[in-house]
Amino acid sequence: MPREAPVAAPPRPGKALGKPGRGRGEGWLYGRHAVAAALANPARRWRRLAVLATEAEAAAALVTAARARRLVAAQSAHEPRGEPRGEAVEVLDRAALNLLLPEGAVHQGWALAVEPLAASDLDEVLRATAGNVAGRSVIVVLDRVGDPHNVGAVLRSAAAFGAAAVVVAEHGAPAVTGVLAKAASGALERLPLVRAGNLSRVLDRLKEAGYWCCGLDATAPAPLASLDLGPRVALVLGAEGSGLRRLVREHCDYLARLPTRPELLSLNVSNAAAIALYELARGG
Amino acid sequence: MPREAPVAAPPRPGKALGKPGRGRGEGWLYGRHAVAAALANPARRWRRLAVLATEAEAAAALVTAARARRLVAAQSAHEPRGEPRGEAVEVLDRAALNLLLPEGAVHQGWALAVEPLAASDLDEVLRATAGNVAGRSVIVVLDRVGDPHNVGAVLRSAAAFGAAAVVVAEHGAPAVTGVLAKAASGALERLPLVRAGNLSRVLDRLKEAGYWCCGLDATAPAPLASLDLGPRVALVLGAEGSGLRRLVREHCDYLARLPTRPELLSLNVSNAAAIALYELARGG
Repeated sequence: MPREAPVAAPPRPGKALGKPGRGRGEGWLYGRHAVAAALANPARRWRRLAVLATEAEAAAALVTAARARRLVAAQSAHEPRGEPRGEAVEVLDRAALNLLLPEGAVHQGWALAVEPLAASDLDEVLRATAGNVAGRSVIVVLDRVGDPHNVGAVLRSAAAFGAAAVVVAEHGAPAVTGVLAKAASGALERLPLVRAGNLSRVLDRLKEAGYWCCGLDATAPAPLASLDLGPRVALVLGAEGSGLRRLVREHCDYLARLPTRPELLSLNVSNAAAIALYELARGG
Repeated sequence: MPREAPVAAPPRPGKALGKPGRGRGEGWLYGRHAVAAALANPARRWRRLAVLATEAEAAAALVTAARARRLVAAQSAHEPRGEPRGEAVEVLDRAALNLLLPEGAVHQGWALAVEPLAASDLDEVLRATAGNVAGRSVIVVLDRVGDPHNVGAVLRSAAAFGAAAVVVAEHGAPAVTGVLAKAASGALERLPLVRAGNLSRVLDRLKEAGYWCCGLDATAPAPLASLDLGPRVALVLGAEGSGLRRLVREHCDYLARLPTRPELLSLNVSNAAAIALYELARGG
């Protein structure tokens, strides 16, 4: 069954632009969903919106809607924290649009030059989820997942299942690029992505806040579905191949496996995360 | 619980090399798992194996193991259908290896020039699974899933859960490239990938063979977990966004949804497939 999502604080605009890799989605975002979600996020500042002619009407409508949301927010005295600097929609041909973006970027006719969002803070996420009493609160923790496609895909599934946040270990985590934002398909604008220096400390902090920390491990005897993990769960996933680091594993309350046939093939980490999020939503 | 995988016929070597897009994994394969699985597949012919110096020892061992398997197969009079044409391991530096492959290919020090495998045949898959009485037999059917990353990732999850085959509609399906093979992480060599001209006919054929055809649809009232689908299930997934085409949908016996919160975000198609494969393995 679907669960109530905790109402987490929306990502804030970055204070400084000179911190590449620490903010979220700096540089060019591309792809229809990633760009539309960024335009819909009042905390996201953007500089240029470039689209193919086929998308111009839809793009103009999104910009108008974003402006209306800011006006409403200002009138209700909830000052928006960020404000687009540009309002114009640039219509480009395919060749010109391609030139703005990395080679091979699947842009679907949409490109948006943005400033990074501020990195999210775990304590802020925990404050926001503390009052959530309806349903299970899930936080995904990624240890050394380096592929931006995978981190983006995990963000997307976490949002689809109403998780509260995704936490990545700063060391080894990918920079927040257009690739990650495209794979997240808009989730980057909706879900806090916390970059942490020390995952063991993150897990300790989560335990203090009442979360059971459950690591996924193909060699664990217990299937995930057999565990009763209670209303707050931190789901910890490691790198494909090497899995969880020893120290991270030792900081988990439980280790669990998914019922695949590892003698055949292992799961991609984003698919393992999606299955575990499903199981926690189903059985929680 | 894990299920017994039906013993499907291994993919055969392609008869003709001049059929780009119809075979599987022609051109260069790259990535450790994709290359190792191709070397381990007796049906896969290859022309060149190029690796970084750090991988040379492991590569030589895999080539030796492949040669030993061919000898054993020949002695037991089960003539292998394919035979590597080359045996040598070329050791290249990173710049030279990069030049062989598409820009940005994450090769992990491994590249293998291969000839395509023959396209698999649905009737052959059904013959192979007909005798399978232990556990549930699952075939995944993809309607207009165009991204090679997604098709590769679905192959990988299907293999990990012991599915019998993946069927794609020829029209709109990606060519079988190194990208697809890398995402499949070896599953391309293990699981039949059937390219079909007409998915409605495929679903009719599957029904004749005793499969219940279940389409995933975010708007369906029934959660997948609520259905009793019996021992043979065809899991039908459509393109992200547009979903299943009307005719394909009408050929399904059931439509079911996953318990995400679509008002938040949709799932990536490979993640939806992984969850559905998990649910079928769990509840079957």
